[in-house]
Amino acid sequence: MEMDLNAQVKKAGFLQRLKDFPSQLKDGVIKRIKNVHKLGKDDPRRIIHSIKVGLSLTLVSMLYYVRPLYNSFGVSGMWAILTVVVVSEFTVGGTLSKALNRGFATLVAGALGVGAVHVARLCGHKGEPIVLGILVFSLGAAATFSRFFPRIKQRYDYGALIFILTFSMVAVSGYRTDEILVIAYQRLSTILIGGTICILVSIFVFPVWAGEDLHKMVANNVTKLANSLEGFENEYFTSSEKTSKETNSCVREYKSILSSKSTEDTLANLARWEPGHGRFRLRHPWTKYLKIAGLVRQCAIHFEILNGYVLSDTKAPQDFISKIQEPCSIMSREAGEALKAIAKSIKTMSRYNVCVSTHIKNSKNAIENLRLALKLSFPDTQKDLLEIIPGVTMVSTLIDIVNNVEKISEAVEEFSVLAHFKETLDPKLSPELGQHQLLHKGTVKPVLEGDNEEEYNNSPHVVIAVHDEQPPTVSENKVMGADKTTADVV
Amino acid sequence: MEMDLNAQVKKAGFLQRLKDFPSQLKDGVIKRIKNVHKLGKDDPRRIIHSIKVGLSLTLVSMLYYVRPLYNSFGVSGMWAILTVVVVSEFTVGGTLSKALNRGFATLVAGALGVGAVHVARLCGHKGEPIVLGILVFSLGAAATFSRFFPRIKQRYDYGALIFILTFSMVAVSGYRTDEILVIAYQRLSTILIGGTICILVSIFVFPVWAGEDLHKMVANNVTKLANSLEGFENEYFTSSEKTSKETNSCVREYKSILSSKSTEDTLANLARWEPGHGRFRLRHPWTKYLKIAGLVRQCAIHFEILNGYVLSDTKAPQDFISKIQEPCSIMSREAGEALKAIAKSIKTMSRYNVCVSTHIKNSKNAIENLRLALKLSFPDTQKDLLEIIPGVTMVSTLIDIVNNVEKISEAVEEFSVLAHFKETLDPKLSPELGQHQLLHKGTVKPVLEGDNEEEYNNSPHVVIAVHDEQPPTVSENKVMGADKTTADVV
Repeated sequence: MEMDLNAQVKKAGFLQRLKDFPSQLKDGVIKRIKNVHKLGKDDPRRIIHSIKVGLSLTLVSMLYYVRPLYNSFGVSGMWAILTVVVVSEFTVGGTLSKALNRGFATLVAGALGVGAVHVARLCGHKGEPIVLGILVFSLGAAATFSRFFPRIKQRYDYGALIFILTFSMVAVSGYRTDEILVIAYQRLSTILIGGTICILVSIFVFPVWAGEDLHKMVANNVTKLANSLEGFENEYFTSSEKTSKETNSCVREYKSILSSKSTEDTLANLARWEPGHGRFRLRHPWTKYLKIAGLVRQCAIHFEILNGYVLSDTKAPQDFISKIQEPCSIMSREAGEALKAIAKSIKTMSRYNVCVSTHIKNSKNAIENLRLALKLSFPDTQKDLLEIIPGVTMVSTLIDIVNNVEKISEAVEEFSVLAHFKETLDPKLSPELGQHQLLHKGTVKPVLEGDNEEEYNNSPHVVIAVHDEQPPTVSENKVMGADKTTADVV
Repeated sequence: MEMDLNAQVKKAGFLQRLKDFPSQLKDGVIKRIKNVHKLGKDDPRRIIHSIKVGLSLTLVSMLYYVRPLYNSFGVSGMWAILTVVVVSEFTVGGTLSKALNRGFATLVAGALGVGAVHVARLCGHKGEPIVLGILVFSLGAAATFSRFFPRIKQRYDYGALIFILTFSMVAVSGYRTDEILVIAYQRLSTILIGGTICILVSIFVFPVWAGEDLHKMVANNVTKLANSLEGFENEYFTSSEKTSKETNSCVREYKSILSSKSTEDTLANLARWEPGHGRFRLRHPWTKYLKIAGLVRQCAIHFEILNGYVLSDTKAPQDFISKIQEPCSIMSREAGEALKAIAKSIKTMSRYNVCVSTHIKNSKNAIENLRLALKLSFPDTQKDLLEIIPGVTMVSTLIDIVNNVEKISEAVEEFSVLAHFKETLDPKLSPELGQHQLLHKGTVKPVLEGDNEEEYNNSPHVVIAVHDEQPPTVSENKVMGADKTTADVV
């Protein structure tokens, strides 16, 4: 009876599946189309690149379609097609690197191959294949080994591959043909034609510059750090009533930086092949970007730790948090502003040294105030040193991040000289500077014995204002909870 | 007068350089040779690989040298050479992936190309190049776009490239020849010959398995973590009198893990192409290695933070450090032992669950003891909460590392089931187990008012011993400074 039921259920399930099949197929197709759409929308340059490759292929096909061209190159035209397919890379740097490697390696290996055939012919018909075999074996092995050298692997790997390929082909086929020089000439010229078509299409039809991508990537990574800092402040210090899922994406923006090293290395490597373009000169210091990127990644590593405290359930007690909240908020906000100014400086290739250093100074002052707050709050935490450990560690990580931001700013400043950044001395260009003349200003809350939050908020505030050389223009005392955009440092 | 002197100095310098030139040249050559020697010595498989490529090239040259072979394949033999050069990769997985991609793509694209030529011929002599041009453009662009899909890029990138290449070549050259089927057959068969030679040489002549490399790499990374932990303990807790440079290399071993992600991804990707070999079955769970590797990297990130404290000049005060030293040492030592057992478990593909979990348990007990020590030491640190912040943060990071080690052990245990690890129930196989039955044992030092180190060492010790279920076989009380290899946990 049960078996019957089972069978019926199974049959019904099968019929249902059969009935659902068309709609599932439709869903599958729609999903695929959406995927394609998304891929193109994420970076429309992908679609353009695909069309560019199609264009290059069509252009190079003319070697076959047009009778006079076919008469002069014959079947060697296929080397042009091969070159176009293999050399067409996404970025200009990639295309140039492959085309130049291919052209140069073909030239050298072709010449060596012709020489090898001539030498081998001196050894008679029987000795010829032996000499050729030995030469192909040894040069092939040596060139393969050379590909393990880091420096060659990085820049000339493709060249070494083409060297082996061309030398072997010329040397071996030279054994069976006497027209070796004609073949070599035809091949070299078709490869040059294919390579030239690729380079021209790559540079003049919606070019994608590896250098510009690298530049934007580094600037964006700095912005991501700034956003993560901002998100951290919101998420850590807001009460748990709010759903933390909303701001999640923002705090976790730094994650992608942790794994961006290989992309940066590749882009920097390709950028060195590119001619001057747009704002970048020929000898733009591309490798210096890697130094900045390394420091940014170092900072992201600290975020990974910080993130652990945001996610962790064992937070420090609320009263301790509320004591460190103000200086911590200022620290992260000012460091975030400094990062944003650095990102802007890179993006616009102009100097904002004063602005950046002011923010960093503010942030460092907040650290000092934090130390003060910790010292003052000491009697209060006597019983629960263990409980405040996560809080103390969080603070310490935050301090590390501020120090890291300073290092990044130093590296970018050094870089800005090498990369000829514009000077922005006009104060109108950085209006946010004015309000930061006020360095220390805010409230220090005397620590109370009771842990009660209400009592705490009603307590008298001691207002401290420290100014940088010139007297302040703003003089009203702000208390906690007032407008957060001014730099009131506890 | 000064000018004269300058000129003289310059001239002398030039003569000196000229004199030095031969020795400098000699030095340069020797340096190069040493470089080559080092590269080969670091991984002798590189030399073997180079010889293997030379061997494959020599074998495939026979298509030209041997008359009967040349008669049947003609100049198509060069496709075999091309295939050998391009397909010969360092690992078996790499070679198989490229050879299969190339073979399959050639077959499909060749068939489509022949079909396209037949369709185009229906449109008359004038319409033929137009139809062919449209087909080459659209299929070329579509295949290029498909290479942006992450899943295709990861496994079939080379196949897509060869697809574009073959289709364009067949379709375009089909316009000029009527023997298209013969040419297609010759090319396909020579590509198959070239691919087969590569695969055979790759598998049967000193094979390099990507899977085995991945396996070893993950196990080694776990060992590196263990060494770093050990090095950290030595470096942080030894007095500054000793030169810290000696142990430096050990502590910094984790550094390479931070940037090993792309290598691991590549190896895991290639390993999936490989047939079963040695201890690894055909469907070995290669992707699971990436999960373990990710956790190991997470742990290495914490080491990066920990390393900051080792290098930093602002250490916590000596008396605080000496208070936390014992439990911290045990924590890191036991976690290190657990990591070593995990690495051994992966290396030998046998389970050491009991051993690993005992070490982790010991380490977690040490954390509890540390909490106790911190609580007890509280009154002492009243005045210098600020000073001990670096120490507290270091401790917190160490605790995070222990938690990370536990996560790694869980992942490896889960993996060990999937990968059919051997059971090692025989206690003889893990002799270190016996001595770990003693879970808690050691001394808790009551905190003294004075910070004096001598006074501290002469103070009475409270001995605590906690045992796991069964009574201990060893019962003598160990005091501080005794043999460190037994698990005396404070």
